[in-house]
Amino acid sequence: MGVAHASIVRWTARHHPQTAEAWLLPVAAETWDGYLNDINGGHVTEEIGVRALEAATSGPIEEGSVGGGTGMNCYEFKGGSGTSSRIVEHDGTPYTVGVFVQANFGARHELAIAGVRLGDELADDNPLEEYFAPSGTGSVIAIVGTDAPLLPNQCKALARRVTLGLARTGTSGSHFSGDLFLAFSTANPGAFSPGSQTLFGGGRAYDELRFVPWGHMDPVFEAVVQATEEAVVNALVANESMTGYRDHRTPALPRERVAEILKARGVID
Amino acid sequence: MGVAHASIVRWTARHHPQTAEAWLLPVAAETWDGYLNDINGGHVTEEIGVRALEAATSGPIEEGSVGGGTGMNCYEFKGGSGTSSRIVEHDGTPYTVGVFVQANFGARHELAIAGVRLGDELADDNPLEEYFAPSGTGSVIAIVGTDAPLLPNQCKALARRVTLGLARTGTSGSHFSGDLFLAFSTANPGAFSPGSQTLFGGGRAYDELRFVPWGHMDPVFEAVVQATEEAVVNALVANESMTGYRDHRTPALPRERVAEILKARGVID
Amino acid sequence: MGVAHASIVRWTARHHPQTAEAWLLPVAAETWDGYLNDINGGHVTEEIGVRALEAATSGPIEEGSVGGGTGMNCYEFKGGSGTSSRIVEHDGTPYTVGVFVQANFGARHELAIAGVRLGDELADDNPLEEYFAPSGTGSVIAIVGTDAPLLPNQCKALARRVTLGLARTGTSGSHFSGDLFLAFSTANPGAFSPGSQTLFGGGRAYDELRFVPWGHMDPVFEAVVQATEEAVVNALVANESMTGYRDHRTPALPRERVAEILKARGVID
Amino acid sequence: MGVAHASIVRWTARHHPQTAEAWLLPVAAETWDGYLNDINGGHVTEEIGVRALEAATSGPIEEGSVGGGTGMNCYEFKGGSGTSSRIVEHDGTPYTVGVFVQANFGARHELAIAGVRLGDELADDNPLEEYFAPSGTGSVIAIVGTDAPLLPNQCKALARRVTLGLARTGTSGSHFSGDLFLAFSTANPGAFSPGSQTLFGGGRAYDELRFVPWGHMDPVFEAVVQATEEAVVNALVANESMTGYRDHRTPALPRERVAEILKARGVID
Repeated sequence: MGVAHASIVRWTARHHPQTAEAWLLPVAAETWDGYLNDINGGHVTEEIGVRALEAATSGPIEEGSVGGGTGMNCYEFKGGSGTSSRIVEHDGTPYTVGVFVQANFGARHELAIAGVRLGDELADDNPLEEYFAPSGTGSVIAIVGTDAPLLPNQCKALARRVTLGLARTGTSGSHFSGDLFLAFSTANPGAFSPGSQTLFGGGRAYDELRFVPWGHMDPVFEAVVQATEEAVVNALVANESMTGYRDHRTPALPRERVAEILKARGVID
Repeated sequence: MGVAHASIVRWTARHHPQTAEAWLLPVAAETWDGYLNDINGGHVTEEIGVRALEAATSGPIEEGSVGGGTGMNCYEFKGGSGTSSRIVEHDGTPYTVGVFVQANFGARHELAIAGVRLGDELADDNPLEEYFAPSGTGSVIAIVGTDAPLLPNQCKALARRVTLGLARTGTSGSHFSGDLFLAFSTANPGAFSPGSQTLFGGGRAYDELRFVPWGHMDPVFEAVVQATEEAVVNALVANESMTGYRDHRTPALPRERVAEILKARGVID
Repeated sequence: MGVAHASIVRWTARHHPQTAEAWLLPVAAETWDGYLNDINGGHVTEEIGVRALEAATSGPIEEGSVGGGTGMNCYEFKGGSGTSSRIVEHDGTPYTVGVFVQANFGARHELAIAGVRLGDELADDNPLEEYFAPSGTGSVIAIVGTDAPLLPNQCKALARRVTLGLARTGTSGSHFSGDLFLAFSTANPGAFSPGSQTLFGGGRAYDELRFVPWGHMDPVFEAVVQATEEAVVNALVANESMTGYRDHRTPALPRERVAEILKARGVID
Repeated sequence: MGVAHASIVRWTARHHPQTAEAWLLPVAAETWDGYLNDINGGHVTEEIGVRALEAATSGPIEEGSVGGGTGMNCYEFKGGSGTSSRIVEHDGTPYTVGVFVQANFGARHELAIAGVRLGDELADDNPLEEYFAPSGTGSVIAIVGTDAPLLPNQCKALARRVTLGLARTGTSGSHFSGDLFLAFSTANPGAFSPGSQTLFGGGRAYDELRFVPWGHMDPVFEAVVQATEEAVVNALVANESMTGYRDHRTPALPRERVAEILKARGVID
């Protein structure tokens, strides 16, 4: 995490030299992937972080064992990055609510997909059980982004709904998973006067925010919960088995078996 | 809520006259039941609250439309009180984790029982849709009690797991539901020196707490989540349809239809 | 507290009968005044609370031993209600920042006025030392109100500054004082669509808030801190000695001696 | 901050190779010192951080412009590191309460020492006023350490009292200062079973904590407040003027003038 933080500062200093004296407050987060990854080996450098920022593009996000998600496990299957979104219509305008997760949590026996508890049927092939860390060790990162106009407190309310989406995949919230959720809105661009305007005297006298009334937020909450659930499942489905650090192996979710079980339960056709 | 609070003070003053100058900090909570109940009619008096305290006994708790749960709705079916518990064994000792809910939340289309989403199949007979309050209006109270020895922060961690149990019943956490959770442990009786001992000088010099190590808490968390889910379902199952204030009617969960659906899905036999 | 809460519900039901089915969320708070007052005697009734609401008027607030402040102690002198305000100019507009405290906290030896620590010189005549409750027992309520346009989080930031104002009067924040702070802005009237508009469909599609940019908040924070300090001192100065419940006596702050000390220190002329 | 975080991980990996797969959760913090320091120049490397950890010794802490405190300003005088402590006796045992601050906050006009407001008399020689950042920009870090046995929540209560100590030095808590407080107790060594014991099965079945009863915490709180106030003043007094990045200059607190003012006010002899 520290190196990622330092990378953002370095990238900013390089590309925005006018910020030389500025306070930069990067957001960086990490989870534990020491089963598959040489986590404390110091392999990620500031320069790698800078290159990642420079390579960033818009467009669809790759799912599965990519980037920070490479070494992740989820319900003791191969986990990693997953994403999903919902469209919410408010007063005739469609807004997107997107969720990105780095799914790195969950004990095998608790896994549920589409409401079907799969722990017993998928209990086999779990080499993580032999490992010293308890089932569910890891941590999950979730980022909720939307173009719906929201107050800061409404973004916080979205972040809090991530828990409900994770719960739909079965987890009880292990002590060994320190979950990190963040939500933001891209609406109201420039609504908060930056400190520099305050300081140099050229700014606005008042700021303004336009937002969805609290009474209309339930569909947005529902979108967060649904997209979170789906993003976790996507992270599981997008993966293949992996053998990593010290020959530790994590199996992929057996997609065909899961599909058969869900069919047998009448959840999918 | 205010009257219940005042009742506890009155009861305490009546039965424990030595507390005449003491600071009493009762815990009282309420949720909105204005659809079925004349909520602001002032029908509950301090004396009714005192009698409830005097009638309190140990033993099983009645479920359904009793006490504060009488006017409650849950997923737009008749809701109310529900309870459930799990036994968690730690180092050879069985501990009980019990959850009591006053289930008064949830929009019909989100209801899930045993992981099966029932919203579409049970969409009919929903007079609350015609009502002015949004689906999911209410609030839910959950009390978690255990005899496992815990730190205060561990009790807080239990209270936070209630959300995951509620999520299993389908809710996305409506803005119109202000959920209230409390967890306590009955272990370590007398562990916290009361203020009076501090004040009069006869107390202990140090207090001590014995507690389950954090690394062993996951089974307790799992118990809270499971018991919460079951307590909500019990509150739904224990009920009958009710017509209340201004002829507002809430249907009961159609138990037989639910059982058929769950059987068809292979969830129950 | 409970009775006050119930009074607000009763008053609302009486004067606004259209709210019969509404959820009412009154704000009521209390502190401990059991030294001077028969605190658990049940003397305050709902009807007294309703009459207080009906007698409410605008205009200056009476300070000292009035209303809820009647039985209060502050730094083991007679405490109670105090208020103070500051004018903050922002972009040419003067805004008022007012603080109302119910000052019921503080150990004698910590009292400071205008930065002068008075504990040693005013240590005499302290009958509360003989009492069973520790010095500093009580709790303080502070309400910050302003007509400056603010975000909810900015109101919270104001409430948090109350602590700094109290600290200027010397307190270290006793464990036996459970301090309660609330801040509100009267600007942006109607900015938050009420639930009823949401529900009946006649409301706005979007809400809007206009607010002082965060970068200009420091003068408002300074106003809160200064007004809080002054409000506590006013609560002390406005009082006379009182003998109450069970002949317990609290002396008033000896105003003349304090003035002499402050003069000797060059703080006042 | 990121580099410091990475340094701790590197140092741990180097000196404790058995933690290769462990989750390490270093605590690192930073404040803004971009007036005197080339803050985004990347001058601190992981290796510098590792060397700092290897050079760490026990004993008195150097005060003033050392380490992370080198570039700090406090009340627009030269700030930096400061420390102070108090002895609190509980049941015949003396406990130490120590506070370490990195004082990097405060607007000149608010400075108070020993209760004497010095803003007007020390308003001259303030080159920071010409700078683009608002008065009070920075942030302050405070670490409270004690050998008194405490619960985690009691440590949190200590951290919260730091605010009251800072307030005694005059600050209103600028928006541009993001204050960071941490408190710990060295008592109860090994009280919390490490995860590894949980995981490998060799650990205790129960943990135990011994702690000062809440009712006896007020003297500890008082110690935190007093030591915080003194630590800030020490950070100011221990300093000399400094000219740094881009020839920005910060004057030292004029110690002799302050002493004269305090003498004139009768605060010191």
